[in-house]
Amino acid sequence: MRNRQRQSSREASLSRRAALGMAAAGAAGLTTLPAVSQAAATGARTVDVVIVGAGFAGLTAARQLRAAGRSVVVLEADDRVGGRTKAGTVAGETVDLGGQWVGPAQTRLLALAKEFGVATYPQYDKGQNLIDIAGHRAAYEGETPALDPAAMGEFAEVIGKIETLSAATSMPRPWEGAAAAEQDAQTIESWLLLNAKSPAVRSAIRLLVRAVFSAETSQISLLYFLAYASAGGGFSALIATRGGAQDSLFDGGVWQLAARMAKDLGAAVVLNAKVESIAQDGTGVTVTTNTGAWRGRYGVVTAPPALASRIDYTPALPARRDGLTQRMPLGCVIKTHIAYSRPFWREQGLTGLVLSDRTEFGPWFDHSPRHGTTGSLVGFFDGGPAQRWADQPPEARRDRVLKDIAQYFGDAALSPIDYVEEVWTRTPLHRGGYVSVPGPGVLTAFGPALLEPVGRIHWAGTETAEAWAGYIDGAVRSGERVAEVVGALL
Amino acid sequence: MRNRQRQSSREASLSRRAALGMAAAGAAGLTTLPAVSQAAATGARTVDVVIVGAGFAGLTAARQLRAAGRSVVVLEADDRVGGRTKAGTVAGETVDLGGQWVGPAQTRLLALAKEFGVATYPQYDKGQNLIDIAGHRAAYEGETPALDPAAMGEFAEVIGKIETLSAATSMPRPWEGAAAAEQDAQTIESWLLLNAKSPAVRSAIRLLVRAVFSAETSQISLLYFLAYASAGGGFSALIATRGGAQDSLFDGGVWQLAARMAKDLGAAVVLNAKVESIAQDGTGVTVTTNTGAWRGRYGVVTAPPALASRIDYTPALPARRDGLTQRMPLGCVIKTHIAYSRPFWREQGLTGLVLSDRTEFGPWFDHSPRHGTTGSLVGFFDGGPAQRWADQPPEARRDRVLKDIAQYFGDAALSPIDYVEEVWTRTPLHRGGYVSVPGPGVLTAFGPALLEPVGRIHWAGTETAEAWAGYIDGAVRSGERVAEVVGALL
Repeated sequence: MRNRQRQSSREASLSRRAALGMAAAGAAGLTTLPAVSQAAATGARTVDVVIVGAGFAGLTAARQLRAAGRSVVVLEADDRVGGRTKAGTVAGETVDLGGQWVGPAQTRLLALAKEFGVATYPQYDKGQNLIDIAGHRAAYEGETPALDPAAMGEFAEVIGKIETLSAATSMPRPWEGAAAAEQDAQTIESWLLLNAKSPAVRSAIRLLVRAVFSAETSQISLLYFLAYASAGGGFSALIATRGGAQDSLFDGGVWQLAARMAKDLGAAVVLNAKVESIAQDGTGVTVTTNTGAWRGRYGVVTAPPALASRIDYTPALPARRDGLTQRMPLGCVIKTHIAYSRPFWREQGLTGLVLSDRTEFGPWFDHSPRHGTTGSLVGFFDGGPAQRWADQPPEARRDRVLKDIAQYFGDAALSPIDYVEEVWTRTPLHRGGYVSVPGPGVLTAFGPALLEPVGRIHWAGTETAEAWAGYIDGAVRSGERVAEVVGALL
Repeated sequence: MRNRQRQSSREASLSRRAALGMAAAGAAGLTTLPAVSQAAATGARTVDVVIVGAGFAGLTAARQLRAAGRSVVVLEADDRVGGRTKAGTVAGETVDLGGQWVGPAQTRLLALAKEFGVATYPQYDKGQNLIDIAGHRAAYEGETPALDPAAMGEFAEVIGKIETLSAATSMPRPWEGAAAAEQDAQTIESWLLLNAKSPAVRSAIRLLVRAVFSAETSQISLLYFLAYASAGGGFSALIATRGGAQDSLFDGGVWQLAARMAKDLGAAVVLNAKVESIAQDGTGVTVTTNTGAWRGRYGVVTAPPALASRIDYTPALPARRDGLTQRMPLGCVIKTHIAYSRPFWREQGLTGLVLSDRTEFGPWFDHSPRHGTTGSLVGFFDGGPAQRWADQPPEARRDRVLKDIAQYFGDAALSPIDYVEEVWTRTPLHRGGYVSVPGPGVLTAFGPALLEPVGRIHWAGTETAEAWAGYIDGAVRSGERVAEVVGALL
């Protein structure tokens, strides 16, 4: 049924192309259904839509367009799919070196997992979390960080203010809100200094913001912060484990979902094809890579703005779009898995979660395999620490990680059985993560360019999502949206 | 004498290269002194230093290295030299479409002009300036904007505070100052809201900042603002005409100085050569353009960080350098010259300078030819207005400019005899101006990467200058510095 639909739709598409005077090559494809055919005129292979980037956004867009009977190609510079998700191995277990968690409100990602039969399981949280903020060290259960009791009132008040402001953000176009100009003129840090007196509250908010954005409170527009929180159901949802954005994990890793989508797409996904330029004219786009060119009626670029700017566009992009790409840096992040012969912190009654302003590494979480006897932690250098440690030798980073963990879990932490890291912020094809984080004055001046198509080029990627921007779920949503928009134009 | 030195130095250089096992091709060059020779091994032409960008920084570095006997090539993507300076014509007069002014403290630029025999002349300032801020319109003489008298006290106080903070900045490494973290966590705007109550003072500072940086107070780090002002001798010096950064103009245009330097460099300047990649190894750099590759022992990149990031580097740049390039957007600017049959504003007793918060276009200045009877104005869309108008049709911009001028000079402004503009922020090879303007949290985390060489690649350009960063003078200084540093390594 689906095949029949696709085929007839493809025929219609080819007829339209022929009517437009385009090369009707690839008719043979009607029997074998290859996604890519040869265009006699340009030497470029021709499809309906050329998609740049095989992360969750690009793959989702591709499969949805395919399901609607369109021909696509997904061009990926890397030798793998998945974008900001990636498979790795630590102590024989396959783990996520990139995005990994899912929350109950991330319904599009959960639907994708259900479709592929990939189960989720809850993030381990039995026992006590540790916190060490502004000189106050405590163990606690649940979601509310146990600051110095004297600071708890103000902490609740500040979180409350953030939630109120966030809920009032004008979504999905935050720059249109009445308070937008004022909120976009300040950083989270300058707002925090005016709204929190307690050093403990300030330090806690800085750490939580850093963990969510991989950037510092001094670098982030308050408006962007509030809009981002709003797109994820509030700041509390972003920082929470149970019920929040760190609620659950995927059995075997979330990267599998990208791999499964790519498998279904088959030859339509082209790896090791780095897009160098995109030229467009009245009838389509020509996307040139190091391994050849593709021609499509439309193009979809899923790379984050800072990396999309490294493609050469003809004609040149409008000032607003190019200006946006100059002002959307990626956060800085290094992700590390540390495996031990057993999860010894559990024996101490600990969940494994530590939130400290006395370490460079952190936060970290229990990430032990569900079966077997070994134990594992997963954690991050985020923001400033990631920036400082990314250019250090791996041994120095490893030493810092283990010593930081040992401060809280004891010397057993110094003897892992395995260790793996991904320095996203130094990886040439990513140059950061988890997401693009604009400073002040960007959204209000350049925000509309995030989504606004430029002729036949459309933009996707988690940064463009109306819900859960910055998360895998947002990437899926952005892929669905762009497939719908472009599909309607074909 | 200079030729002899150059030759013997070149011989020594070639011997060293041969000793390093490099192809000693280009020996023929010893008799004809071409700047560029052919390296047998790679097919790349070989020089001592490959310089990317033929603006004032690159040209200055090239001539200084040449004078020291080194061989250089300057690769320029555009079909002209001059970078952010450029020649244009309005009503038969040659004018600067980019940088144009010089102040008395800009000694390196003045020295260059003297060397080439290009005279300067004072910016016309006879008569009264017009100001229209926060609903108060006034005419005044001299350098201090005549705000509503009730606001003048606070204006002086705020300027005083800025000068005090600016003078206390830790230069040339502002991120090392005791107040750096705090100052880098806020925008000029959030500082202004706390330090100025009067709407007139706020509006005036916003306009002046916009005119200096081509960016909005909401987009600029307070620390960067203070450091930039410090590098130019204080904020008052930056905004002043007489004695300040807008003191004088060059007879025939400042662009001539770039043209003269390029003429002296001859075949060592290669136009229409867009640098696509830079690869380095233990002995040198290979710089590949759309028209061939060059090999040098060192490379100098003068492009501003946001554009330098669009080059492909092998090995990949360190995280801190790449991170900097994601966080140094160029300001937004459109420059316009409007010629009239006579300078009719002079007949009204006006200098031609108008500073208004009720126009999109502005400020503008008298730029009438020194000889003859025609009159001319030069002005800008800066920051927000430039961003908003860059993607509009030229006719709409022209209409806006003329109507804005007519509000102050009368309907005679609606009938120019000629009109020319340069939309820097839309030009693919520039994408903004006058200078790169980081938001909060950038300098303190990424600042050192502005200058720090990456292996054999050194960075220049006005952004890297210790004095007059953002000005042509700073570009010249950065070229001198990099030539000295790289020269000492050869």
